[in-house]
Amino acid sequence: MRRTAFFVSESTGITAETLGQSLLSQFDTVEFERVYMPYINTELRAQALTQRMQEAAERDGVRPIVFATMLDEQIRSIIKSGNCFYIELFEVFIDPLAQELGVPPSRKSGRSHAITKPSYYTKRIEAINFAMANDDGVRPDNFHRADVVLIGVSRSGKTPTCLYLAMHYGLRAANYPLTEEDFERGDVPQLLYDCRHKLFALTIDPQRLQLIREERRRGSSYASLKRCQEDIARAHQIYKRLQAPVINTTSLSIEEISSQIVKTLKDAQESGGPLTREPLPIEPSY
Amino acid sequence: MRRTAFFVSESTGITAETLGQSLLSQFDTVEFERVYMPYINTELRAQALTQRMQEAAERDGVRPIVFATMLDEQIRSIIKSGNCFYIELFEVFIDPLAQELGVPPSRKSGRSHAITKPSYYTKRIEAINFAMANDDGVRPDNFHRADVVLIGVSRSGKTPTCLYLAMHYGLRAANYPLTEEDFERGDVPQLLYDCRHKLFALTIDPQRLQLIREERRRGSSYASLKRCQEDIARAHQIYKRLQAPVINTTSLSIEEISSQIVKTLKDAQESGGPLTREPLPIEPSY
Repeated sequence: MRRTAFFVSESTGITAETLGQSLLSQFDTVEFERVYMPYINTELRAQALTQRMQEAAERDGVRPIVFATMLDEQIRSIIKSGNCFYIELFEVFIDPLAQELGVPPSRKSGRSHAITKPSYYTKRIEAINFAMANDDGVRPDNFHRADVVLIGVSRSGKTPTCLYLAMHYGLRAANYPLTEEDFERGDVPQLLYDCRHKLFALTIDPQRLQLIREERRRGSSYASLKRCQEDIARAHQIYKRLQAPVINTTSLSIEEISSQIVKTLKDAQESGGPLTREPLPIEPSY
Repeated sequence: MRRTAFFVSESTGITAETLGQSLLSQFDTVEFERVYMPYINTELRAQALTQRMQEAAERDGVRPIVFATMLDEQIRSIIKSGNCFYIELFEVFIDPLAQELGVPPSRKSGRSHAITKPSYYTKRIEAINFAMANDDGVRPDNFHRADVVLIGVSRSGKTPTCLYLAMHYGLRAANYPLTEEDFERGDVPQLLYDCRHKLFALTIDPQRLQLIREERRRGSSYASLKRCQEDIARAHQIYKRLQAPVINTTSLSIEEISSQIVKTLKDAQESGGPLTREPLPIEPSY
């Protein structure tokens, strides 16, 4: 079975997409053709959209699903009148929330992904620049300025996770790749012991690591299963010495790795545990 | 007025956060204390949460708002029974959607930000690696492999936007910084003309640019208003020669810049216009 799903918004469409995708993920027996329609902010664009909905209905033999977050009633009514199963993701919650809060909604569109708090936005951008400048252990002398430090073997997911932590949690994330030199010593520089309270060790199943490394350098000894197994075994010995919490990234997305790290940091912070350094102003932004 | 808002989920919490924040952004006269509670996936954790809700209610003098996406009925009922205004963001849509689709929901939690499509996930990670390796014009010979190329003066937003495009749209994004050499020539290398169909020029108001550059190198001539004005004026002459679409990033977030770029690329692709190169499999993921 095949259905078309439209994600429709007057601005970026991120909210409509996020909740719409979450809902669709509950119906994994259906094959969805996803169509992303941001900036439907004029009646003309809404009319063009109803045309596309009609085409999808004819192609699929069944009307499409529309996930929308529309604040303008006129534009919304045009879309709703089209040949579709319309789900408004926003409106249903606005009135009960307004009643509970005792204030009316502003009804301005595009508020949620605009820069509404400049100081927090600046912090996010600075965190991204920090992650870029402190990738791959190039400046371990900067680790004392980091909020989080990841350690792991090559291709275990350090770089994309650091960027995600910076982009969505405003955290200054740095990473340290375990090298042949570390493995030979069976230890890592003192700098890493100094940041143990904010250190997370990434591991990955050797078979999965082999696949990823093969993509990078096909047929190399670097990508051989034996080398992957050895690297990971030696990494675990070092993690044990460091007493760092270990996250197995094999089947985790960067979203999942990041939210686990943030949860651990926050739990430690709230319990005043040994991981705590200073209160982290963690404020997610998607 | 001050209210506490909890964002609660059995897994990463990204969906609850995104829609919850969107809803709160409609009530900008209220000051919200935001509390992020992912991985509330046991009854014990749910009970601890109700405790925190009670504390917030006593502190604020009014019950907190809870935005939740709970699939487990037992855990949900514990949270709902606490002292809060509970908004379930997911459940209300599931049944109508199941009826329309004619299939039951899987009711598995944590589906939306897990790796459900490995090939698309791999594409995103590769795009992130591409953006990292092709930042700041270090390898313009790689521009032919890019899906998008951004051009702009130093600190106009190129790097974070490229990373966002990679992370959330799986696009291979590269960027080229305009340098003194380009300004003196009044032109850019032929390579940039060759990728005009995927080129976006970023601009920014000189006053804003000055603020950003001051953060970086306080008191330098690089950060002076005069230099910022000159850089931007000379950049615009080059953009005119290139006939590149110009985006003013002054008050836009990286989310907004990125979704505008994606919309332009998709519109061009669908209209078969001059910007089109090949169909881009754009599939957002937040």
